[in-house]
Order: sequence, then C-alpha cells, then structure tokens
Amino acid sequence: MQGNMMDVQLTVPTILERIRTQYAGREVVSLLVAGRDEHGNPVPHKHRTTYGQVADRAQRLAGGLLGLGLTKGDRVATLAVNSFRHLEAYLGVPSAGLVLHTVNIRLHPEQICWILNHAEDRVLLIENVFAAMIPTIRAGCPHLEHIFVLGPTPQPIPLPGVHDYDTFVQESGPLARYPDLDERDAAAMCYTSGTTGNPKGVVYTHRSTVLHSLASAPKDALNVGEADSVLPIVPMFHVNAWGLPYTCAMYGAKQVYAGVFADGRSVATLLQDEEVTITAGVPTIWMGLLAELDRAAQAGEPYQLGGLERLIVGGSAAPEAMIRAFQTRHNLALLQAWGMTETHPLGTASGVPYGVDPTSDEGFTLRAKQGRTVPLIELDVLDDQGARLPHDGKTMGRLIIRGPWVASSYFKGEGQSNFFDLDGQQWFDTGDIATLDERGYMHIQDRAKDLIKSGGEWISSVDLENAIMAHPAVNLCAVIAMDDPKWDERPLAVVTPKPGQSVTHDELISFIAPRFAKWWLPDATVVTDSIPIGATGKILKRELRDQYRSYSST
Amino acid sequence: MQGNMMDVQLTVPTILERIRTQYAGREVVSLLVAGRDEHGNPVPHKHRTTYGQVADRAQRLAGGLLGLGLTKGDRVATLAVNSFRHLEAYLGVPSAGLVLHTVNIRLHPEQICWILNHAEDRVLLIENVFAAMIPTIRAGCPHLEHIFVLGPTPQPIPLPGVHDYDTFVQESGPLARYPDLDERDAAAMCYTSGTTGNPKGVVYTHRSTVLHSLASAPKDALNVGEADSVLPIVPMFHVNAWGLPYTCAMYGAKQVYAGVFADGRSVATLLQDEEVTITAGVPTIWMGLLAELDRAAQAGEPYQLGGLERLIVGGSAAPEAMIRAFQTRHNLALLQAWGMTETHPLGTASGVPYGVDPTSDEGFTLRAKQGRTVPLIELDVLDDQGARLPHDGKTMGRLIIRGPWVASSYFKGEGQSNFFDLDGQQWFDTGDIATLDERGYMHIQDRAKDLIKSGGEWISSVDLENAIMAHPAVNLCAVIAMDDPKWDERPLAVVTPKPGQSVTHDELISFIAPRFAKWWLPDATVVTDSIPIGATGKILKRELRDQYRSYSST
Ligand SMILES: Nc1ncnc2c1ncn2[C@@H]1O[C@H](COP(=O)(O)O)[C@@H](O)[C@H]1O
Repeated sequence: MQGNMMDVQLTVPTILERIRTQYAGREVVSLLVAGRDEHGNPVPHKHRTTYGQVADRAQRLAGGLLGLGLTKGDRVATLAVNSFRHLEAYLGVPSAGLVLHTVNIRLHPEQICWILNHAEDRVLLIENVFAAMIPTIRAGCPHLEHIFVLGPTPQPIPLPGVHDYDTFVQESGPLARYPDLDERDAAAMCYTSGTTGNPKGVVYTHRSTVLHSLASAPKDALNVGEADSVLPIVPMFHVNAWGLPYTCAMYGAKQVYAGVFADGRSVATLLQDEEVTITAGVPTIWMGLLAELDRAAQAGEPYQLGGLERLIVGGSAAPEAMIRAFQTRHNLALLQAWGMTETHPLGTASGVPYGVDPTSDEGFTLRAKQGRTVPLIELDVLDDQGARLPHDGKTMGRLIIRGPWVASSYFKGEGQSNFFDLDGQQWFDTGDIATLDERGYMHIQDRAKDLIKSGGEWISSVDLENAIMAHPAVNLCAVIAMDDPKWDERPLAVVTPKPGQSVTHDELISFIAPRFAKWWLPDATVVTDSIPIGATGKILKRELRDQYRSYSST
Repeated sequence: MQGNMMDVQLTVPTILERIRTQYAGREVVSLLVAGRDEHGNPVPHKHRTTYGQVADRAQRLAGGLLGLGLTKGDRVATLAVNSFRHLEAYLGVPSAGLVLHTVNIRLHPEQICWILNHAEDRVLLIENVFAAMIPTIRAGCPHLEHIFVLGPTPQPIPLPGVHDYDTFVQESGPLARYPDLDERDAAAMCYTSGTTGNPKGVVYTHRSTVLHSLASAPKDALNVGEADSVLPIVPMFHVNAWGLPYTCAMYGAKQVYAGVFADGRSVATLLQDEEVTITAGVPTIWMGLLAELDRAAQAGEPYQLGGLERLIVGGSAAPEAMIRAFQTRHNLALLQAWGMTETHPLGTASGVPYGVDPTSDEGFTLRAKQGRTVPLIELDVLDDQGARLPHDGKTMGRLIIRGPWVASSYFKGEGQSNFFDLDGQQWFDTGDIATLDERGYMHIQDRAKDLIKSGGEWISSVDLENAIMAHPAVNLCAVIAMDDPKWDERPLAVVTPKPGQSVTHDELISFIAPRFAKWWLPDATVVTDSIPIGATGKILKRELRDQYRSYSST
C-alpha cells in the first residue's frame, strides 16, 4: 500500500526560494582582495551583501547560463575562493538544472585542465586572483566555451570567450521559471584528491544536497539556525564546504567568507568582528588560530569570542591535545566531524552522549574520536575477508558506509571496486581503518594505506600522532611505516617542533609510553622543519614514505 | 544527467536502528494508571524504560504481527494514550511493513467502529482503560482479527481473539530482517477530525515521516537533540503527536509521556521532575498549566522549571495574551507552530526573525502569528477565483500548501476537491483563511467556514478572540457569526469568565476597541460558563453557531 503524500522533489531551488522569500535581509559578508601591499601580500576589503541580493543575482546567473545555450546536466566549473560570488554559483547553477563543478584551486594547472576536460565543463567561473592561469586553461581545455572572471581585473583579459562575471550577471535576465527537476538529477560534482591514480568525480544530486542540509542542521551536528553567523573556512571547492553554504541558506544563517585570508590573525579578527557563532575547517587552520589566540591572550589583548559556540573540525583527525587546548585555554568548543568527498561529506559528529561531561577526561577522549552517525548514515567494519567485525571499540576493520548522500559510483563508472554489495545492500569502502563501539562511536585508526603492519599486527599511525602532538614542544607530527628486515614495517615519527623549541626521540617516547603497548612505540624520530601538506590541507604521507622508507637502514 | 548517490530509502527502520545502536541507554518515562482513588480518579504510577528496551520490544512486536499472518500494507490500529507501549507500536508496526493507524480515543464508539471499518484494520492495540469498549468494537468491526490490550486488566477479557499485549510481545521472536521498503510505502495513517461529512484518512509514508523528523528537529523549529527531555502532551493519536516520537527517537532525546494525566498540576510536576526541556500541546493544555503555575507562585512554592526551554503550541491559534503571560510571569517561551492532519503536521513555526527581540511588542505580535515555513514547505494565498494574492500581510485569502509531507489525496480517493493543480504543481487547500507577509509570516485569520462576512467584507474571528482573551477576567472566548438582516452576518462574542470574575459586553468592547475598525467589533456578548470543546481540544464553533445563529433577533 502506497501512502498519499505529494510527490514534491527535494531540489536546490527550494533553498534558493527560502533566502528570497524568508531571509532576504540576512547578510553575506566576504573578504575580497582589494590590492597588494608593498610585499605583494593581498590587502583585504570587506564586502557586505544580503540573501535578497544573492538570490536575485543567482537567478540572473541561472538565466544567463541558459541564455548561452547550456542545457540540463551541462557542467559549470568554478576555480574560486570562498565568497558571495561563489555562493551565487552554488545556488544559481543547480537551480538552472546545470551541474556545479567546484575545482580545487591548489592543484597544478595541468591537473586542473585534466579535471576540466574529464568533466567536460562548458563554462568556467574563475577568481580574478587566478587570472594568470586563463591562457593555459584556454589552450588546454577544448570543451570550455566561456570563462567568467569573478571580481575586478587590473586590465580586461583580451582572450575570446573571456568575460566579466559581474557584468554578465547584471545584464542577464533572471530565470523565468525553475526547470523541472528530478531529485536524482545531478546538482554538483567534486573530484577526490586522489593520492593514487587519476582523480575521480563524485556527482551529488539535488536529493543528496537537500537531505544533507536537513541532516546536518540539528544541534547534535552543526546546530544552524537563523540567528547564527557562520564562517566556513573549509574551502568551497572542497565537498561543497561541507555543505555549509546550503545548510546556512536553508535556515537563514548569516554567512561569512574569508576568501584568501585563512591565517590565524585574519580568522580571529573575522570571528570577533562578525560575531561568528559557528565556524568550520581542517585542523591546520585551528592550529593557526590557536597560536594567534594564545599570542593575543599573552599580550593582554584577547579576542572577544563570547558568542562563538562551536568550531567544527574535520578533514583529518583532530588531536585530543588541540581539543583540550581550545577548551581549557580559551573556553572554546571544538566538535569533530568526519566525512569524505564520497559522502557529501557528513558521516559522523563527535558530540558526547547524554550524561557525559564534555570537559571531563572521558568527554575529551570521546571528542577525539570521529563520533556517531548523523541520521540515515550506516557504518560497519569488515575484516579482510569481508566479514562483519564486532562493535567492541577494539577490533579494527575496514570502515564501510551507506546512506542517501553516499556515492554509489564515480563519474563515468570509474573505480567500481570501492562499491560493493553486502547482504543485498550497497556499501562504499572508505579506505579507512576504524573501530566501532557499543554506543556507535567510530574511531579512525588510519587510512588503510597508511597503516603500519609490524610483525603481522596493525599499528595505528593516527593514535601515535595524536599522542605525540600532545607534547608541548611539538607542532606537527606524522607517523609512517619504514621498512624493517625483521618486522616488515616499524613506525617512524616525523616531527616539526614549535618555533624556538626542540625535542628528542627519547623525550617523546617517554612522554607517550604510558599510553601504548611497547611494540607500538616508534623506533626513531626525525625532527625536521617542514612536513609536506597537500592541496586539501592534509599531510602528504605518501611523500614522507617515499623519503623515509629506508630510514632505519640509513 | 543523473547523480551517483546511493538509492538508500528513507524509512522508519532507520529510526528504530538509531535508538538500538546509538541511544540504547536513553530513558522513556510514562505515567501509567495504577488504579483508582475513592472518587474513581486514576492514580498515576511512573514507569521507566530505555530506548534499548523499546527497540527490542518494537522488533518483537513487528515479528509477532508478521507471525499472525499480516502482510505488507495491512493496517494495525491503536486506541491508546501516550506511553512507551504506544511508542513501541510507532516504531514496530511500520518497521514490519505494516501501517500504524492511530485512532482518536475521544470519539464515540460508533465513530470509532466506522473508522476501523473504513481503514479495514486487521489488528487493534487498545489501552486497558478503554477495555469496556471491546465488546462493542468486536461486534461492530468484522475486519478486526486480533485485539491486544495494553497494560494489565483487572480480569482477563474472555472474548475470542483478545489477548494481553505484553505477553504477546514477550513471547514473539524479534523480526529477523526488515522487509524491503520503498520510501513511498505507507507507514501510518490518521483520520481528520472531519467537522463536516465523514472523517477522511490521511496516509503518511516512510518518506514523509523521515523528512518531517529531519525538518522539524533544527533549532528554529523544535530544537531536538540527545540532551533533551521531551514531553509531548499532544496525543499520540493526533497526527503522530506532531511527529515528536519519531523526531525524538531519531536524535536520541529522552521521551516523557503523561498518559491520561494532562491537568495543570500533573503536567507541571512532570515537567519539573523529569527535567523536561521541550514540551508540546494545544492552547487549552497551556491554559491549565498557566493557572497552576500562577497558583503555585502565589502560594510561594513555584515549580522549578529552569531547564524548560520551549513550549510548542499548536492545533489552534495561541492568543498573544497567553504567550505574554508565560513569558512575563514565568520566563517561559511559547513557540507557536501550525499544521494539519493533512500536513503531517508541521508547516510553520513562529520564531522571530534575526534582529527582533522576542519579548518586545513586535516580537510578541510576530509570535502570535503562525510563522514561517520549515524547509521544503511552500505556502500561498488565493482569492475566490483561484488567483494568487499579494504577500503584503494584509490581503486575506485561502491558504494553500505543498510539500513532501503534505497529502496528495485522502485514503480511497475521497475529498478530491481539496487537491488541485496550479501552474502545473499540486497544492492542497487548507480551508484556512490567512495572510502572508513580505518576510513569509503566515497569519491565520479563520477557518474558511468560521469567517464572518459582514456587508460583503471579512471579519477574522481569531483576531477578535485573541484580543478579548487578553482581558484579565476572560477565560475562553469564541467569536462567531450571527445572522443579521442588514449586514448578513455580524460578530457575536461568546465568553467564559475566569473563576469568581465577571465581565460585560461594554467592558470588553472598550477594552478591544482601540485595536479594530469599528465595524469589526462584536454587536453582542454572551457570557456563559462553558464553551463546547471537541475531541482534539478545539472549540466546536459549529455547535455554538447552531445555538446562537439567531441571537440578535432574540
Ligand atoms: N497554530 C495554529 N494557529 C491557528 N490555527 C491552527 C494552528 N495549528 C492548527 N490550527 C488549525 O487546525 C487545523 C488543522 O486541524 P487538525 O487537522 O485537526 O490538526 C488547521 O487547519 C488550523 O485551522
């Protein structure tokens, strides 16, 4: 027996309509680049607009794009920083029935061209600060018919097919009517960072975008409402900035964008001046912020962040020491969240269960895990033979996931081996190694490829890293496998000390020894002054492994 | 172009699985009837269980029902008060692929039989306190094969096919595996109160149930999370208790149920003792609570309700005076919500927009409106010819609604005239007369059939009632149309005074006159000691109209 509910589709235009009809007066604030100082560093200029303006411009963008002859399902790429213009594309492109393809600005131009070609993008919206790339892209991307430059350029770009975005938007008539959309139509796409092989495209649907916005808003996840002011530091090219631009628009929260200004001082100032209540970013960003907050506090001029209710941290494991430092030194709450490009991304959030004090030892331990699922997401752990493992908080296994905003395949059917059937249901293999406990807490132990296998047993590099990063003299740490004649692999710690500090292998080992079995402890420590970070802010362990694989024998 | 997201269905079992795997320790508290005192009044007994237990028993109920030979889509009726057993049915019945049909316990046994027959229910779960009805129902409902009695009965009921619910649950094996469900399959059904003609069935789907839970949880609507303790006073037979049992289970909030104990004192005590943070009910309930809170405060023994963050009020308009009284006298926040059986029910919630102080005059005025839509719900107002009217906060029109949890037809295709197409989209005509303003605020002026048409112009009975109820001596007020030879219809106020108080027509008119055009003011006032209230707690205006239609001429 079927129910009698209306067949109303879950689509991005419903979000656009909300900011137009209910939240037109709410603000969108962006730090744009006004120019360069004498050292060539960008100088910020604060731009303020409203949802009403953004909605109007998004509808004009939609109308303009269709006017160029684009048709349903055509891809529109962005190479852009976080700003109101990017937000217009987020709302306008899918509302025209087109697919918003956000491209990682930190990639090499050749990789960018590869991705634009693979996605067959017909239009590119490119930030003025990257305008120098235009000739390369023009030459390398035959599918690309139109390029629009976001923000003023010193002089007009004289290439054919290259136009000014603002002029295009102003001169285009708004969409007369939203196209008929099925909720399973593509709305947006993102390529995975792809540490092995070519990047793969993940295609989000209108349905997954709307469901993700609904599921991520409640208080045990992001806690977004109209009274909030939200600063997503996580780039808009990275898994739709964790869905925040859509979630905030759906609920009418003010949006604040930092553009290219992600250093500790800029972020702290923006948090304070825009009375931000919720912000989100990778651990590296919060490391920078923490240092700035410490500095300001010591200088006797602390930032006023009384309204800052929640810092969402994701993208890689948040060390417990960092969560504690924010809480105890600055009374700020970090909430860890976990997800992937393939999961749109929210899978889990790490609030503590009812009855546990979040600032107790148990609370901090739980908050350093990746957390429990948001509604509609299921997790499980499998052994190497594909059998389900116990949820006992101890047994490590391959983490698998399913849910309505989890990918069922990659674009053009690539990488099929990551998607598989188990007991008649489709699952995605995350490539993470994790434990699950009786209460549903998931704890990532490692990327499968970063696990260290010593004498046939697994050692979690993430656990060791977190413990080492709690040492007061340590800035960043990566633990990787080095070859070992006897044990096959043994852990090696690679560490950068805090400015002006030093640290030795023996100090670190005696610091962490109480918390680990003896055979887990790294055999050696390399102290260096830089650890390579990739385009999405994560440590490039592959590079470190290449460099130090045979360290023990040197 | 289609996206590549998993085709995971939105179903009730995903909610059941959450309380089993993530929130097993969280409590469910119910006031049951332990017996009767010397006056025959029920004596409460407090029952405590956990989500883990509820999940286990729900799975046994599901297994047991399928064991009886019921198959997908079969209806299972409940005639039950709010308690953990009803919650088990909420989760277990749809998870077995069956349809939970909640029946209004306040209806006449003949109406109940009519509804059970119309729905062709095969099983009935009936509360022990209604056991006296069983022989009538047995005799009147040929489709009914099994009746299970919820809670202990003084002596076993010797009728064939009548069994003890707890024994059935304990002896049944849990469901081996959830059936394959499509999200558009029926999950639950409810009959409208039906003030004209026969009641009509509304059939909710798994999809509408899940989407409603997601959309109602965020902070600008119900604000439900794991740390909450939620007391739904709204009956579980009424539109799924506004979805709260599902929303709370999805997010792990503690649930508190008052059973038959809905008087001011019982409610206040439960709110205090169970540290309730969110509660929900119709205005009549809050009137009773307000009187009790006033009494206790005057007696110098106020209730301790410091954690009570939100009282949701809906079902009929909440008078501004009541919202103010709770806020100013008890520092408690009432949040108005609007919906219908046909809308599952949440359509709007009346939080104030960013920047408005909820305790300012503007704030109270806005909170006395029905509010702005939750995501995915669209509203519009039409004139008598079906043309869209301006959203100017002034122009009254027929309120229409669409959204994924709005009915597209009634059960068995009845009442088709309420569903219609506008510009290629399906809408439902609510039968309410309302205004919409520039910010999306909806304000119900009347049920279409309760509007007063004086000299061809509409007068809103709801506005007048709210104004009159602000008078300190007035307890309840209904404004209805009486026949008038000159103007066709004129407003008549029917008023019950507060205990020990009195009030006259002239006093009331001079009290409200500053707020209305002269021709809106009632021509007469009837002071009476009771106003008829129907089975869902709303004033039965039809009865009043029958009684007073020709009042002016008497
Ligand atoms: N907050 C509210 N203010 C005014 N009327 C309401 C409100 N909530 C529900 N109603 C009325 O109740 C009707 C639905 O009744 P029911 O289907 O029994 O839930 C709506 O059409 C409204 O007329």
